[in-house]
Amino acid sequence: MTQKPLLNSFNPGNANELDAPTKALIARRQRALGAGYRLFYERPVYAERAEGIWLYGKDGERYLDAYNNVPSVGHCHPRVVEAIAKQAAKLNTHTRYLFDVVIDYAETLLATFPPDLDNVMFTCSGSEATDLALRVARDFTQAEGIIVTRHAYHGTTAAAAEVSPSRGATSPRIRTVGAPDFYRSPDGNVGAQLAEEVARAIDSLKKDGAGFAGLVLDTVFSSDGLCVEPAGFLRDVTDVVRAAGGLLIADEVQGGFGRTGSHMWGFARHGIVPDLVVMGKAMGNGMPIGGVVGKSHLFDKFGKSNRYFNTFAGNPVCCAAALAVLEVIESEQLMANSVAVGNYLRTALADLARPYPQIGDVRGAGLFAGVEFVKDQSTRQPNAAAALACVNALRDKRILISTMGPYGSTLKIRPPLPFTREAVDLLIKSLGECLTQI
Amino acid sequence: MTQKPLLNSFNPGNANELDAPTKALIARRQRALGAGYRLFYERPVYAERAEGIWLYGKDGERYLDAYNNVPSVGHCHPRVVEAIAKQAAKLNTHTRYLFDVVIDYAETLLATFPPDLDNVMFTCSGSEATDLALRVARDFTQAEGIIVTRHAYHGTTAAAAEVSPSRGATSPRIRTVGAPDFYRSPDGNVGAQLAEEVARAIDSLKKDGAGFAGLVLDTVFSSDGLCVEPAGFLRDVTDVVRAAGGLLIADEVQGGFGRTGSHMWGFARHGIVPDLVVMGKAMGNGMPIGGVVGKSHLFDKFGKSNRYFNTFAGNPVCCAAALAVLEVIESEQLMANSVAVGNYLRTALADLARPYPQIGDVRGAGLFAGVEFVKDQSTRQPNAAAALACVNALRDKRILISTMGPYGSTLKIRPPLPFTREAVDLLIKSLGECLTQI
Repeated sequence: MTQKPLLNSFNPGNANELDAPTKALIARRQRALGAGYRLFYERPVYAERAEGIWLYGKDGERYLDAYNNVPSVGHCHPRVVEAIAKQAAKLNTHTRYLFDVVIDYAETLLATFPPDLDNVMFTCSGSEATDLALRVARDFTQAEGIIVTRHAYHGTTAAAAEVSPSRGATSPRIRTVGAPDFYRSPDGNVGAQLAEEVARAIDSLKKDGAGFAGLVLDTVFSSDGLCVEPAGFLRDVTDVVRAAGGLLIADEVQGGFGRTGSHMWGFARHGIVPDLVVMGKAMGNGMPIGGVVGKSHLFDKFGKSNRYFNTFAGNPVCCAAALAVLEVIESEQLMANSVAVGNYLRTALADLARPYPQIGDVRGAGLFAGVEFVKDQSTRQPNAAAALACVNALRDKRILISTMGPYGSTLKIRPPLPFTREAVDLLIKSLGECLTQI
Repeated sequence: MTQKPLLNSFNPGNANELDAPTKALIARRQRALGAGYRLFYERPVYAERAEGIWLYGKDGERYLDAYNNVPSVGHCHPRVVEAIAKQAAKLNTHTRYLFDVVIDYAETLLATFPPDLDNVMFTCSGSEATDLALRVARDFTQAEGIIVTRHAYHGTTAAAAEVSPSRGATSPRIRTVGAPDFYRSPDGNVGAQLAEEVARAIDSLKKDGAGFAGLVLDTVFSSDGLCVEPAGFLRDVTDVVRAAGGLLIADEVQGGFGRTGSHMWGFARHGIVPDLVVMGKAMGNGMPIGGVVGKSHLFDKFGKSNRYFNTFAGNPVCCAAALAVLEVIESEQLMANSVAVGNYLRTALADLARPYPQIGDVRGAGLFAGVEFVKDQSTRQPNAAAALACVNALRDKRILISTMGPYGSTLKIRPPLPFTREAVDLLIKSLGECLTQI
């Protein structure tokens, strides 16, 4: 079992390097929150406030945020903050009463989808959305078997964790397939490979009696290390899933809300239409809201035998925030920015990488970039230690990123969408300094 | 299978009674949200704003809220609204960075618990909290079997729905036991009955190989129809659970945060200490926050083999709201108000009921009251139709309540905690008018 390096594990061996307020808060935190809570970095970041693409520490320093996709339109965006404050002062209740904003938001959100995806059910998180999508898919197909990629992460409820092999999950009703890896694919035909593996997994599930309910895919394969090329490669596997009577569930927690720039949704880059779409993270710019968009006949059937009600889901405050997010993406042209600044970023990363043999690959789409470290460019053997050293060195230069992928060997660069060329320049300069050090 | 009456099902047969804006919004809602979404009342309420114990409709009318426990310290409480607005403008991120408010809140919350319950893990909802508590309990005991009461509701994720027989769930690893029903108990010894039934269920789970992980109890038995007397009756069953090596999981989504007035937590009324405590609803006055408070050694073991991270859980905005809730409960003495106004309410309900043979029982604790309708006081046969008629008649008098219990025969009166004697008087007057009608 490969494990990601524990970026997020505080190492008490380094406690002496921390300032007194940080040490004191970590001690209180460990007492109250317990062993389950991890922190990023050898030297955790103690945050005070944040704005746009910057996070300000208690230490008085500012940190460039090149990592967080939750504050997708920028930390504490004034328009989102105003929407939250106004709605919180006016009405915050549940969906068994009628109110406007949940419908206004639902319609605005659905307008970004193909017409077949005509209903939305709200949740409080991406995990609850995955959990609901699995319930709907199993109800519709009357089958249990789910297929996911080998290092996928789809959430933290019991059912979502079961389809998250990156967290060590295994289950007789789950099958895993190799995620597309364009960098290590000999012929570059990642779509055909994925389709073949999924076909075999479907056979296996059917033979073992679990049946086939669906395939869950993060459309940018974030936990699997980011694979976005070539656009269109999900078409074959979509056909395989449909022919076998299963549902295609697109997890857009990472790829959605304009992250890839060219399309609002990651699946749209591939020219496919899923049956159910799971969303979360970027949806409310940090407010807890998630959802499942899908074909109404699936929800109709689910509603016949299940009474689903989620108290906080679709509440006016979170919907007001989420509606403001869509408005800001449009009014500030953040998708165009994601394309332009994303291209600038990847070009700069590729230029920077050229003299360094420890960088094997630069990849991505829009403002989601990966930089993979290897021990040797010909064998492409992953180098997690170099990536981790780089992340911690960047943190010390007050630039926030992390790693991803099955080997933890790939830098995960995934900033708020208003990221600028100047911010890219600063990131590249700092990364260059780190590369000469490690 | 008994089913609650569909209070929350919009009946198109009554569409002609609705005003045009309401009809139009319902049509848009059905198109966007689909068949899974239900509404309260034959004539749904179209909400515009809310304040304290009042909800204001689009129709310009005001509705007395005698039902909603989520806006626990009052709709749009100014102190909570201010906390949300300030924090949203300052910082909203996740717990892999350090920040103050999540720790301040965790410590303040834990101070309301017995010392053995020394850790808290945050979630976005009560459902996620139940789901996490089940994972922790199963991990600790290495057993699968869970016992719940026959009409319990503990949440909406796949795992939480599995322990929610009120929604029709069944599973080989779940056993149900009769909920305490003081009103229908011949000798009033509901504690011994419950303990005996649980002991038998434990044997059954062990015999069938599922093993015994724990007993999940709503400490006020809300979905089971509200059973709070006699205080202390959970002691026997706690001993049975412990002796069998299982965990006691208290669901405080209904009974917690001062609802019963005399104690902050429902379990405390019974003089017991659970192993894990699930909370949600009232926690953030409408903001999506839930949590599991428990004994740290349980979380320690869970953390060794599971990497649990919940993006939105413990975020600064929801924690700021939740901290303000605890401060308001204290500064406005809402628990004392719950005792005083709750007693006044139950006395008034009992006085009102006396001439009406269709009312079989008035019960409750603090500001959670039940009024059970029967067909005959001697047989105590439940009368759901009368309860439902009463709820719809009260809605037409602009008083919001609902029903509860296995038969749907009990009025569920569960207002925000700042409920007043004047509000009780209005409720009683209106209820009296309804009783003469039905």
